[in-house]
Amino acid sequence: MADDNEGIASPTRGSRLSRRSLLAGTVAAAGALAFADRAAAQAEPPTVPDDPTKVAGSPIAPVGTRSPFEHPARLVPAPVPAFTPLDQLNGMITPSDLHYVIARGGIPAIDPARYQLLIHGMVDRPTTFSLDDLKRFPSVSRIMFLECAGNTRDAWKGADPGSTVQQLAGLTSTSEWTGVPVATLLKEVDVSSGASWALAEGSDAGALSRSIPVEKLLADGLVAYGQNGEALRPEQGYPARLLLPGWIGNTNVKWLRRLKLGDQPFMTRYETALYTFPEPDGKAVQFAFVLEAKSAITRPSGGMTIAEPGFWEVTGLAWPGRGRITRVEVSADGGQTWGDAALQEPVLPISHTRFRFPWMWDGGEAVLQSRATDETGYVQPTRAQLVAVRGTDFGEMFNGIIGWHVASDGKVTYVES
Amino acid sequence: MADDNEGIASPTRGSRLSRRSLLAGTVAAAGALAFADRAAAQAEPPTVPDDPTKVAGSPIAPVGTRSPFEHPARLVPAPVPAFTPLDQLNGMITPSDLHYVIARGGIPAIDPARYQLLIHGMVDRPTTFSLDDLKRFPSVSRIMFLECAGNTRDAWKGADPGSTVQQLAGLTSTSEWTGVPVATLLKEVDVSSGASWALAEGSDAGALSRSIPVEKLLADGLVAYGQNGEALRPEQGYPARLLLPGWIGNTNVKWLRRLKLGDQPFMTRYETALYTFPEPDGKAVQFAFVLEAKSAITRPSGGMTIAEPGFWEVTGLAWPGRGRITRVEVSADGGQTWGDAALQEPVLPISHTRFRFPWMWDGGEAVLQSRATDETGYVQPTRAQLVAVRGTDFGEMFNGIIGWHVASDGKVTYVES
Repeated sequence: MADDNEGIASPTRGSRLSRRSLLAGTVAAAGALAFADRAAAQAEPPTVPDDPTKVAGSPIAPVGTRSPFEHPARLVPAPVPAFTPLDQLNGMITPSDLHYVIARGGIPAIDPARYQLLIHGMVDRPTTFSLDDLKRFPSVSRIMFLECAGNTRDAWKGADPGSTVQQLAGLTSTSEWTGVPVATLLKEVDVSSGASWALAEGSDAGALSRSIPVEKLLADGLVAYGQNGEALRPEQGYPARLLLPGWIGNTNVKWLRRLKLGDQPFMTRYETALYTFPEPDGKAVQFAFVLEAKSAITRPSGGMTIAEPGFWEVTGLAWPGRGRITRVEVSADGGQTWGDAALQEPVLPISHTRFRFPWMWDGGEAVLQSRATDETGYVQPTRAQLVAVRGTDFGEMFNGIIGWHVASDGKVTYVES
Repeated sequence: MADDNEGIASPTRGSRLSRRSLLAGTVAAAGALAFADRAAAQAEPPTVPDDPTKVAGSPIAPVGTRSPFEHPARLVPAPVPAFTPLDQLNGMITPSDLHYVIARGGIPAIDPARYQLLIHGMVDRPTTFSLDDLKRFPSVSRIMFLECAGNTRDAWKGADPGSTVQQLAGLTSTSEWTGVPVATLLKEVDVSSGASWALAEGSDAGALSRSIPVEKLLADGLVAYGQNGEALRPEQGYPARLLLPGWIGNTNVKWLRRLKLGDQPFMTRYETALYTFPEPDGKAVQFAFVLEAKSAITRPSGGMTIAEPGFWEVTGLAWPGRGRITRVEVSADGGQTWGDAALQEPVLPISHTRFRFPWMWDGGEAVLQSRATDETGYVQPTRAQLVAVRGTDFGEMFNGIIGWHVASDGKVTYVES
């Protein structure tokens, strides 16, 4: 192959072609790389042969591993949460071991052979279901995002300009989930007339519990035991969890052990002391469930440095709590002008949707923003619009436009939209 | 919660409800469980608290792990191949560490910073692309299956009745891939008029290479660097591979280092000594690329035992090399009568498609089969139909109907269709 290399253009060996300048240089993801470097420093630096075609490769293992050069990882700044590294990911699916996690009581250890889901209260036939029982019912799969109500909460008060997209928006992930519709289980136990709420309770320390309208459970609730083709991961509720498409993360109760039917909400700690949101008039919003449409540019994003002017693809994710994303617009001038981004098919309901927008950076200051629209016609608001309605103490459910300031040296930082 | 349990129906504590008999018992996956047991035997048996709500759980790690009770694994009976455990999976996505692998030279170790893709031969501007170059071009993602041409090869001559679906059909997997269209790269180098073939060469030991029509590269070829949201796994061609939607696995050259354009096929070892297929008339089929529509029932399947008569969901995967699956039919009587299975949305082109069929087992002998139809109208043939055309020495590209015999004791074994 050596002879073949003569006279070959290459960005790294000096290009003879002006159009090749489109390719020179790279996005340097400073934040992400710093994190990766820490992980790499703990391991032996990988050694590789100069010509891998001349040496035998490694054998195939029953379970594969990542390249020793790749260190994607969640930020876990405190016991909770763990942030998905959106800046390092591509496509729509989140690798299961990088799914964001909130687990206030830690990750419980549960033997699947002893797992039971109890459905009782206002039902004709209170019943416990083993995991094998759940798996025997007709199953469904759906690709669906989850998001913590607290995702992007820093933006209410004013986030640190040094924030990365992982820190600001990394409490959302998408998986392909498999399980049994809650409607099937409720039919099995025969819900009493008048039952309008269910207490969903987890097996974690403290037994997180939420009151869920029966109407939602019947509409599209799922008891899931599968994630991205395999069993749920322990952090995601192994062996079975509740999924409520489009509703805030903590209503999707993990390690689900009980559904108790009743005729009113159960007023648990998670809907009284927590997860009620103060508004400017002094009242509080309780039982706010639906995640409104939202988006974030993941590349380029906070902490990265754009190496040089020229062509760069702007890409990110949009996610709707109601139906599908129908449009994502991108602005490079702080919202003065917008252009339509391409949406990656398949565009699925209640799923991360990858968008892409071609951008020619002229080397001047710029502010990159994305704005999502869902199929109800709802348009992602600016932070200012959100704050005008909810003040700055709302605390959760921030879905405003996120801005990334690009300095003339290429440094990307968070800026309020 | 103890009081709540009084008077609760449960399959394991004796049901008071006749309809609950639908739930008693489970599919015992003998083959899969034996494999899992081997893995589990090497580790400490997991211990779990009696009531996980009363003890603090484990902390969240930067990268998650599977439950200690879950041991999905590929069969690696020889240096190659490694079979995806289809019997243990749900949904459509294959976990990246369980993707099937063929790697005749082993898995090469490649430093992404030193990776180069050379495109040369009949082009105006021979060029090397670094990984960062590839990532800077406009990208696309697609959920797509791959399949080894040798998948289900045992069925040509007559497979062992003890075969599992993993052994018989586990050389196919589906991932969400991200990369740059080959058309973009070929535009960058300006392909000379008259160039009709390209040599695609890998960096593995022996440098696997195949001749690919330029028409296919331009139509939908992809140089992929992303898999299921993250970087390609080493076994899948890290840091970059070729993807040719719907074409036999080994044309999707992994660890891609070179595309050389020419005006005729390059007659590599992989299209002369290997991957040519003898037909009954003494001639051989060369450059057979497209995988015709195929399907397999994954549960119940070979090696499992059905615990008792009653309701069981029959589920499996169908995959088309041309467009979308439009129909999957299931028979429980060896092909005398067929019923339409439900297809899990989204039904995507060139992707695994999950199908499901409700089945009431009466406890008698049965033969379960699935039959896929694609959007061209092609219907998956029986083995007899395939053999009538190709004989039994064809060796590869078996896409006939796969049968599972259910004995009256519930044991499931392979049977020729």
